[in-house]
Amino acid sequence: MYRTHNNGALRMSDVGQEVTLSGWLQASRDFGGMTFIDLRDRYGITQLVFNMEVDADLCTKARKLGREFVLKISGIVHERSNKNPNRLTGDIEIIVNDLEILNESKTPPFTIEDETDGGDDIRMKYRYLDIRRNPVKNNLVFRSKLGIEVRKYLSDQDFVEIETPFLIKSTPEGARDFVVPSRMNKGQFYALPQSPQTFKQLLMVAGMDKYFQIVKCFRDEDLRADRQPEFTQIDCEMAFVTQEEILNTFEGLTRHLFKSTLDIELGDFPRMTYDDAMEQYGSDKPDLRFDMKFVYLNDLAQNKGFSVFDSAEVVVGINATGQAENYSNKDIKKLTEWMQRPQIGAKGLVYVKWNADGSIKSSVGKFYSDADLQAWLEKAGAKKGDMMLILSGETDKTRKQLNELRLEMGRRMGFMKKGDFKPLWVVDFPLLEWDEESNRFHAMHHPFTSPKKEEISRMLNGDHETMKSLKADAYDMVINGAEIGGGSIRIHDRELQSKNFDLLGFTKEEAEEQFGFLMGAFEYGAPPHGGLAFGFDRLSAVMNDDSSIRDYIAFPKNNQGRDVMIDAPAPVSDEQLAEWGMEMSGDLAK
Amino acid sequence: MYRTHNNGALRMSDVGQEVTLSGWLQASRDFGGMTFIDLRDRYGITQLVFNMEVDADLCTKARKLGREFVLKISGIVHERSNKNPNRLTGDIEIIVNDLEILNESKTPPFTIEDETDGGDDIRMKYRYLDIRRNPVKNNLVFRSKLGIEVRKYLSDQDFVEIETPFLIKSTPEGARDFVVPSRMNKGQFYALPQSPQTFKQLLMVAGMDKYFQIVKCFRDEDLRADRQPEFTQIDCEMAFVTQEEILNTFEGLTRHLFKSTLDIELGDFPRMTYDDAMEQYGSDKPDLRFDMKFVYLNDLAQNKGFSVFDSAEVVVGINATGQAENYSNKDIKKLTEWMQRPQIGAKGLVYVKWNADGSIKSSVGKFYSDADLQAWLEKAGAKKGDMMLILSGETDKTRKQLNELRLEMGRRMGFMKKGDFKPLWVVDFPLLEWDEESNRFHAMHHPFTSPKKEEISRMLNGDHETMKSLKADAYDMVINGAEIGGGSIRIHDRELQSKNFDLLGFTKEEAEEQFGFLMGAFEYGAPPHGGLAFGFDRLSAVMNDDSSIRDYIAFPKNNQGRDVMIDAPAPVSDEQLAEWGMEMSGDLAK
Repeated sequence: MYRTHNNGALRMSDVGQEVTLSGWLQASRDFGGMTFIDLRDRYGITQLVFNMEVDADLCTKARKLGREFVLKISGIVHERSNKNPNRLTGDIEIIVNDLEILNESKTPPFTIEDETDGGDDIRMKYRYLDIRRNPVKNNLVFRSKLGIEVRKYLSDQDFVEIETPFLIKSTPEGARDFVVPSRMNKGQFYALPQSPQTFKQLLMVAGMDKYFQIVKCFRDEDLRADRQPEFTQIDCEMAFVTQEEILNTFEGLTRHLFKSTLDIELGDFPRMTYDDAMEQYGSDKPDLRFDMKFVYLNDLAQNKGFSVFDSAEVVVGINATGQAENYSNKDIKKLTEWMQRPQIGAKGLVYVKWNADGSIKSSVGKFYSDADLQAWLEKAGAKKGDMMLILSGETDKTRKQLNELRLEMGRRMGFMKKGDFKPLWVVDFPLLEWDEESNRFHAMHHPFTSPKKEEISRMLNGDHETMKSLKADAYDMVINGAEIGGGSIRIHDRELQSKNFDLLGFTKEEAEEQFGFLMGAFEYGAPPHGGLAFGFDRLSAVMNDDSSIRDYIAFPKNNQGRDVMIDAPAPVSDEQLAEWGMEMSGDLAK
Repeated sequence: MYRTHNNGALRMSDVGQEVTLSGWLQASRDFGGMTFIDLRDRYGITQLVFNMEVDADLCTKARKLGREFVLKISGIVHERSNKNPNRLTGDIEIIVNDLEILNESKTPPFTIEDETDGGDDIRMKYRYLDIRRNPVKNNLVFRSKLGIEVRKYLSDQDFVEIETPFLIKSTPEGARDFVVPSRMNKGQFYALPQSPQTFKQLLMVAGMDKYFQIVKCFRDEDLRADRQPEFTQIDCEMAFVTQEEILNTFEGLTRHLFKSTLDIELGDFPRMTYDDAMEQYGSDKPDLRFDMKFVYLNDLAQNKGFSVFDSAEVVVGINATGQAENYSNKDIKKLTEWMQRPQIGAKGLVYVKWNADGSIKSSVGKFYSDADLQAWLEKAGAKKGDMMLILSGETDKTRKQLNELRLEMGRRMGFMKKGDFKPLWVVDFPLLEWDEESNRFHAMHHPFTSPKKEEISRMLNGDHETMKSLKADAYDMVINGAEIGGGSIRIHDRELQSKNFDLLGFTKEEAEEQFGFLMGAFEYGAPPHGGLAFGFDRLSAVMNDDSSIRDYIAFPKNNQGRDVMIDAPAPVSDEQLAEWGMEMSGDLAK
């Protein structure tokens, strides 16, 4: 037996007991006559004591141990004289009477501490050491607990977890698939699923009624920061439901998850239409930890002789409360430059300060009277001491830019408080968006999303312009400005699905070849159904106020899609390639 | 809203209530003035009543509905006059006052009944209809519940569920990998994991202490009946454990699963060494629902002049209690022919009947006296009325054949009772097996399995013959003759792991290239660790006395590895191939 207790278990009530512990040497302190060792495992740290006077051989042996050595010790639990209230086991220590080295360790390439000296690359290469650090370990433990709670809640609600296949069929819609050559069917390929979308819909046709799955999905995209080629979804689908029932069900799940893992009672889940979100926040995932809604100034600011505003489609600003005194001309200049970076691309930034003394100062002061500017401030609900920041230009672009500014100001003004969670449903997304470049519609959500019931006849019979205005029963759950999940009511009718593929530029043949099985299934009594999928990695990160998902994944890939620890991907032999009837082409051929 | 209740919910206490139900038309019975419809969903069936006298239009509409139409109805719950005690809702029926057809259905290609008229192929093609049938549906619901219980139990025991990557590195050891070409790293491939073995070991090095995962695994094997290219494991690993602690932990899990899902208290989990299992049952997964142990007769049957036995390495039989009268000469001949089929390959079959009247009859009666034969019977513990069946030949082959005969007799004699579960741990597997064909050792379990502690120095220093006799801390859980799970204590020492790769025929370079990351990890304080993996599909099937795993998988592949419903795998375009720097070769090139 390697241990009677783990290293987080012992308390004052165990004093006097003979115990056996195993773990890693976290730290060692040598005070000549006595040597103290911190023994660590997943559960905590226990202090070990070796005394030259009591057992010189043992103490000498203990002195030679290095960091991360794996030890097994036996000894007696004693009360500590200098207790450590920050440690679960801080009241006790072990007077060791037996020590076995279970394994040695080379000096680790970075320190195994909460704040480590290791950079990202070396931490990834030695991920098995990185996970020994509390922050990463705690994230993985949190994620596991979160998964358990998802399953408990949904199964208590009669959801059935069903595994859908990983070896499926490639479809060119959306992101690129990862594919898998078939040896038994040479010249043919499986694809790894980007999501179990069609399968979960088939499970609804199959009468499973309520389905969920925590499942890996795969997208072969050029990896932006914080994207992973394999990621995990909480994937859900329900039959015989309205959008309202779905929102309530998953609002319930989300409340349960925050309560059971963080002991946080979430407040309201307001619902906001996509159109309102875009108009008021310039984003379909507004961060509602703070207000700072957009204020449209076209009526007040145009036709007063300032040509930049006059020629703009939209003049829109936000009010930064109490910031008038905080921004010098230099600060405003810096902020303007920040907005002008190519990532945001604003042409300029107009400010109107309502100083504490009642005076008004603005970068467009020479075009507008104080009364004009005061009217703007009043429309924005500003008070003395506030500062308005205003952009103008083409509507979509300007809203997007102002969204960035709003978020930046929210950050600077301390509104993005850790532990403050503001959830939101964004609803009524457009069904389709017109893409000028490819000269066709794209599905705003995905090709299986249903238009709203009252839009169906418009969709089946309308003209091109009608299609642009169709609204869908599609919804996103947003928390603190992050999209946590999204879904829709699905089409369950062959004709409507066919029409949608048509609008999305599929030929009849392509639609049949790729999705014939689904449209076929719709002919055998498909029930109305809908669902959603949460990003499990993202949810884990957002619940911990983390912006990156990487440390919620045990073994993530880097931005080149590589696992630098195991060094994958890697070449395979020509013999293997031949088994799939393939060879490398061009320069890659050996 | 589509329903106020599901179709399994309504009881006598609901009589008088106005309800709305949705579901599928299971059956319709037209009695002229009245029409009865059985409305089905996942939860049950509710009887609907339409009456010509009450509402002729509605009743006429109802008469036209076909099987599997999707309906939404409203009506009043009434007490039934002829109650159906076999149905949850059998006390009530709904007098319908409103009917909406949510979707129509073509006539399904097979009946949606517990016993269907559909063959395997058509059921697979229309799997979404097959799942509507109770047997398949119930299997999937059972599997889901089983997964939940696994997670509840293990997380209560401090196990952390951690997702390991699916895009990993190809290793030529064992079965063939499925591979995934990388677009970002042209000419390189990921592999899909055959199991998370190395990752779970790295998680132990990482200090996660107790890990589990219910996870898909992939093997590109030529598919025998009841093998799937993707299958699911309950994968587990623990650090600082002995074999004994692992066996106890997963015996506990298994007990919990049987109790919580089937309300069955499992009896003892006996432990049997691999050597004993092979000697007594000719199998490393004996079915212990019945005894019928092997009886070795070399001492009694050899050197009496019967050359077949005299020249045999082993003469071994089983005693079939009470079967003497049940087997005519013709029956024995048939059984002998069954044993002589190429799948089994026995040369012959010897019987000795101890008839009820005390007389002894045997196919080798002319070589042996009655006293000789009686000595055999007595050694086998036979009584009057019993029949011994005896084989002879080379030890391994003969044991295997006799195992088949034992199982066949167990089946015929009614010993394989449904609902009777006899678990067993088979322990002390050999570490290595010598393969004559490839002239090298193969890992009996896998290359990461540790020899028993007391064998390590023999392994590091022994000769070739020594290697053949090494025993491992490796174990299988067997229930009713099916291998449910297996595992081992792992090597956690670089030198020992390196030695094992060496024995398995890896060059130093190959071992380093493929498993360098693991051996590297062993140098940074790897703890002693071990674990096991259960076959989740198999466990689900065995717990339901089913021999096939296929109907415990929502969307299985056929024996050619095809999903006939979605028609995968399928060709991809040359443009896609080019993105991975590949082309089809030979005849497959277009």
